[in-house]
Amino acid sequence: MSEMALRAAVIGLGSMGYGMAQSLRRAGLGVAGCDVNPDAVARFAAEGGRGAAGPAEAAAGAAIVVSVVVNAAQTEAVLFGDGGIAAAMPEGSVFVSCATMDPAVVRRLAARLEETGRHYLDAPISGGAQRAAEGQLTILASGSAAAFAAARPALDAMAATLYELGDAAGQGAAFKMINQLLAGVHIAAASEAMAFAARQGLDLKRVYEVITASAGNSWMFQNRMPHVLDGDYAPRSATDIFVKDLGIIQDMARAQTFPVPVAAAALQMFLMTSAAGMGRDDDASVARLYAQVTGTALPGGGRG
Amino acid sequence: MSEMALRAAVIGLGSMGYGMAQSLRRAGLGVAGCDVNPDAVARFAAEGGRGAAGPAEAAAGAAIVVSVVVNAAQTEAVLFGDGGIAAAMPEGSVFVSCATMDPAVVRRLAARLEETGRHYLDAPISGGAQRAAEGQLTILASGSAAAFAAARPALDAMAATLYELGDAAGQGAAFKMINQLLAGVHIAAASEAMAFAARQGLDLKRVYEVITASAGNSWMFQNRMPHVLDGDYAPRSATDIFVKDLGIIQDMARAQTFPVPVAAAALQMFLMTSAAGMGRDDDASVARLYAQVTGTALPGGGRG
Repeated sequence: MSEMALRAAVIGLGSMGYGMAQSLRRAGLGVAGCDVNPDAVARFAAEGGRGAAGPAEAAAGAAIVVSVVVNAAQTEAVLFGDGGIAAAMPEGSVFVSCATMDPAVVRRLAARLEETGRHYLDAPISGGAQRAAEGQLTILASGSAAAFAAARPALDAMAATLYELGDAAGQGAAFKMINQLLAGVHIAAASEAMAFAARQGLDLKRVYEVITASAGNSWMFQNRMPHVLDGDYAPRSATDIFVKDLGIIQDMARAQTFPVPVAAAALQMFLMTSAAGMGRDDDASVARLYAQVTGTALPGGGRG
Repeated sequence: MSEMALRAAVIGLGSMGYGMAQSLRRAGLGVAGCDVNPDAVARFAAEGGRGAAGPAEAAAGAAIVVSVVVNAAQTEAVLFGDGGIAAAMPEGSVFVSCATMDPAVVRRLAARLEETGRHYLDAPISGGAQRAAEGQLTILASGSAAAFAAARPALDAMAATLYELGDAAGQGAAFKMINQLLAGVHIAAASEAMAFAARQGLDLKRVYEVITASAGNSWMFQNRMPHVLDGDYAPRSATDIFVKDLGIIQDMARAQTFPVPVAAAALQMFLMTSAAGMGRDDDASVARLYAQVTGTALPGGGRG
């Protein structure tokens, strides 16, 4: 990294964060990265990044801090917990928060950070690990003009599609939650339908062919049901992600006295799948849960 | 119609059946049509078809009888009720049944008809009125080789996509029910998500733009949510269609001791929408139901 390079930090070098850190480096930024897993940090350093011992060390001197942790609790800890980075970030720098969170929590964290003279960009992501590595993510962003301006070089490096969804933190999160509501329901519905089709004795490959060409199709049906056809539940995205995200939907909806019965039914199926020991398996495991409960055969059989 | 033309009958000249009858005529078949609505029959005759007083008159001498009625009860009445056509159909002719039905009912009706020496093709359709008129339907067919052979000229005239899904009646119906399970859940989920998005204060046009480009998309979200954006609930497909079809799913599933909680939640929302007086309105009215119950504003307001 050149002495003059804009400095960025990436907190969390998991499957998404690692690729995003590499995209930032490819765009010419100087990137420090940290993770609770020292192997990820060592690998990042070996490939030319700067490994940091923790969030505060990574954030020191960074104009842009990209947080790619799992949830609201981790995001709050990164900012304001023991060794939190809020105090270590330079004045005028921006915190780009990518975790999927309740918009109300986002607003609270953003207000607390902005009081200290740093900017907060609400920037949940979608697209998966490969698009993260290619700098081809979709980012659902909202925040002040100053936050967008400060984050711009990182956004340009990481995103193929950047939605600018409002001038306050929380709006990006709200759009993301609407997407997650639909995505979660569609995985549960696809699983219910495929297991029910198997119970009818239908050829599931034919079901996939017909449905993906019909009005019953969804992005998730098309993307996830090949895992069921192949009997392959190695996690591309885990069941517990939707236990979390549909759980946030329930929290938001209950707080607003807004009934969401379809999302509630879907959440119960993810919970049941997690309770049956498949929380860390691919989220298409919901289909296996239906099959196991009903004694219906699916390709690849049940779970061991 | 030429004296030598293959003769067909269409039972039910509604928005789908009328277009299908015209597609058959365009392909050179001699077509007799009937309907409970005499205006539809008069219009068909005025446009060059042969109007018939009832199903038996239409079916007399027809090599192919296409039944485009609403449900299983009407289909059974057409075949075996007072003035039913089973006895009027020529030996070796084929009954092409397009209504969406429980596969178990289809198997029963087919067995009863086939005992008499006529063929039964299980042939649920999808695609809407315009594609019906253009001969561009999707048909999910199953039946004996003899049934397919006898029906072929009509299938060629009516379908852009013909799925041949098995050698016994009931298999086409089962594929159709899997599609309807998904389609119904997706409409209910889209409605839940759009109303919930409105409750978050999001710009719904922006929500439509983001979701249709994201992993939360479904064919139904993309097709139906413009009705919500426009506040236009004139029925393209009515709420009560999914009260019926998700009801069939519940009947099938309960008979098979197969839990379908996501489809069950969706059915309750269609029922609630119908109970609130919107059964004959567009099925995107489920979004209006959520909005009305929660006091959330949607474009075009509530139901006046």
